[in-house]
Amino acid sequence: MTIQTDAVIVGAGPVGLFQVFELGLLGLKAELVDSLPQVGGQCAELYPEKPIYDIPAWPVIGAQELVDKLMQQIKPFHAGIHLGQRVEKFEKREDGRFTVVTSTGTEFDAGAVIIAAGLGAFQARKLKAKGIDEVTSDQIHYKVTNREQFRGKRLLILGGGDSALDWTMDLAEIAESVELIHRRNEYRGAAASVEKVRALAAEGKVRERQGIITQVHSEDGRFTGFDLMDLERNKSSVEGDEVLVFWGLSPDLGPIADWGLDLEKKQIPVDTEKFQTSVEGVFAIGDVNTYPGKKKFILSGFHEAALAAFGVQKYVYPDARQFVQYTTTSPIMHKRLGVADE
Amino acid sequence: MTIQTDAVIVGAGPVGLFQVFELGLLGLKAELVDSLPQVGGQCAELYPEKPIYDIPAWPVIGAQELVDKLMQQIKPFHAGIHLGQRVEKFEKREDGRFTVVTSTGTEFDAGAVIIAAGLGAFQARKLKAKGIDEVTSDQIHYKVTNREQFRGKRLLILGGGDSALDWTMDLAEIAESVELIHRRNEYRGAAASVEKVRALAAEGKVRERQGIITQVHSEDGRFTGFDLMDLERNKSSVEGDEVLVFWGLSPDLGPIADWGLDLEKKQIPVDTEKFQTSVEGVFAIGDVNTYPGKKKFILSGFHEAALAAFGVQKYVYPDARQFVQYTTTSPIMHKRLGVADE
Repeated sequence: MTIQTDAVIVGAGPVGLFQVFELGLLGLKAELVDSLPQVGGQCAELYPEKPIYDIPAWPVIGAQELVDKLMQQIKPFHAGIHLGQRVEKFEKREDGRFTVVTSTGTEFDAGAVIIAAGLGAFQARKLKAKGIDEVTSDQIHYKVTNREQFRGKRLLILGGGDSALDWTMDLAEIAESVELIHRRNEYRGAAASVEKVRALAAEGKVRERQGIITQVHSEDGRFTGFDLMDLERNKSSVEGDEVLVFWGLSPDLGPIADWGLDLEKKQIPVDTEKFQTSVEGVFAIGDVNTYPGKKKFILSGFHEAALAAFGVQKYVYPDARQFVQYTTTSPIMHKRLGVADE
Repeated sequence: MTIQTDAVIVGAGPVGLFQVFELGLLGLKAELVDSLPQVGGQCAELYPEKPIYDIPAWPVIGAQELVDKLMQQIKPFHAGIHLGQRVEKFEKREDGRFTVVTSTGTEFDAGAVIIAAGLGAFQARKLKAKGIDEVTSDQIHYKVTNREQFRGKRLLILGGGDSALDWTMDLAEIAESVELIHRRNEYRGAAASVEKVRALAAEGKVRERQGIITQVHSEDGRFTGFDLMDLERNKSSVEGDEVLVFWGLSPDLGPIADWGLDLEKKQIPVDTEKFQTSVEGVFAIGDVNTYPGKKKFILSGFHEAALAAFGVQKYVYPDARQFVQYTTTSPIMHKRLGVADE
């Protein structure tokens, strides 16, 4: 079933959330899509507990608290929220509307698209090393979707955080061997996990190895092993059947880079009148965009969302009369906000 | 004594207040000037009790509450606040700095000037009618500075609000006669005042008169009387010695219009990179400025203040290294905000 909407907002960080509000004030419906499993973007994912001091009229506000307040503020507008999915298909149709399909198959017929993707979708940081491009097999993994495929295999697990430690403990039970390869002999994971991994190493069920990868070896496209160098510049080599990379998440513009929009250093140039991209009907707000003077402040994204809403309205409903109404005094605004007039 | 400062901010409404904050984050000192007797601009003067719904992360906030929160937010930066005074002298000196002098004689030597004057300074709505330009005497008053000057005079008081009613009651005690002239036979003032004025009229101490002024009469520049026409188009004439006009306050750009800045329909065009006017070193933010797409939203003024701060820094300290630091993570920001680092 295709969801009809005025606008699809790609990214449910603070700025994407506030875009729902600004569209709602103009009577426009919106659907939010985010690759993360929760709303709030970086605020919720990377630093929910951190205090922010430069949100106007909030002398201090926690990042998650900011997200919570915004969720409360957009409640009257009942936006659809589609989490844990990335936009995989994007097409501007001849009628000027957009077909947008996500990785889980959610399909939208949208009047406009607003990119509020921040620094991009969070994705596994990729293994980059000399020789990696020759590997064409599927032996390099960034997540475990089928644990059984690792049974009886010689595993090389890369990383020093919780994911690397957790899978080391888990897969040590079924693998032929597990080598945990990290830059240095200290881990960022939970203390209890570190202890358990050290114990497994002491029992000989896991081998810890330090170093960075200097060379990836392969034969006919199949991965065979790494050359490593540790902090004291000692070299070593290791062989394995499967590689699991847990180097954390990094933001990446991802498929948006292929939508045919002009880009400047991985950012999307926009005008400062309505924050429209090089493609009419596609807008970009927040950290993802660029224009002369741009600063990556949340409060700038809020302003951009306000003006973009008028741009969206103009694009989707070119005949609509446009005028500014104030939430303080306008009965129409009060009706849309669901607050009673005296 | 001349006050040395990085920036004089003209207007202490929400946007002017937040400008103090954004300058403060960059280590810049500011001084605020406002013609009103309190900070908060329109929010505090015109609708302190009204709820505002479109401040990001505030599902609802009272106008005065918004002002209070902003005052709390800018507290770490100790801006000088100069109320009840208008900027009367503005001069860009050869060294690129500015001499700014207010109506009460406060003098600044400022690196930059930021106009955050909203719709302008609030001033008495002026008497405009046919023939008014011929009056060159000082018989037309917009406030009472010396009550005694009205003793024994025939007074014409214009208006139907509290100021008109209050002065009608007060001056009826000392004047030879008082005519209260209002468009219609209903007043906007407090019920008790209305009642008291009606009682004075019944006693013959005040005469109520309805109508709009169709002609101002004068002789050799001295005011003599009005022709009036009421809602039923009945005409009348009235004579008097002194006129007191209490038609409320209306915002007016005032002397700012004479600063030599480019203007467009009483607004100040700015760039959208740093919100600078046609005069280098003079910035304009909030409702007073204009640029393509401009909407008069408080939140837009906040964004403009953030980018203007960088423009001010560049103008005042051209050699300073400019980079964005986040209040969430930067120890320098935490020091300026007066919040402890862990």
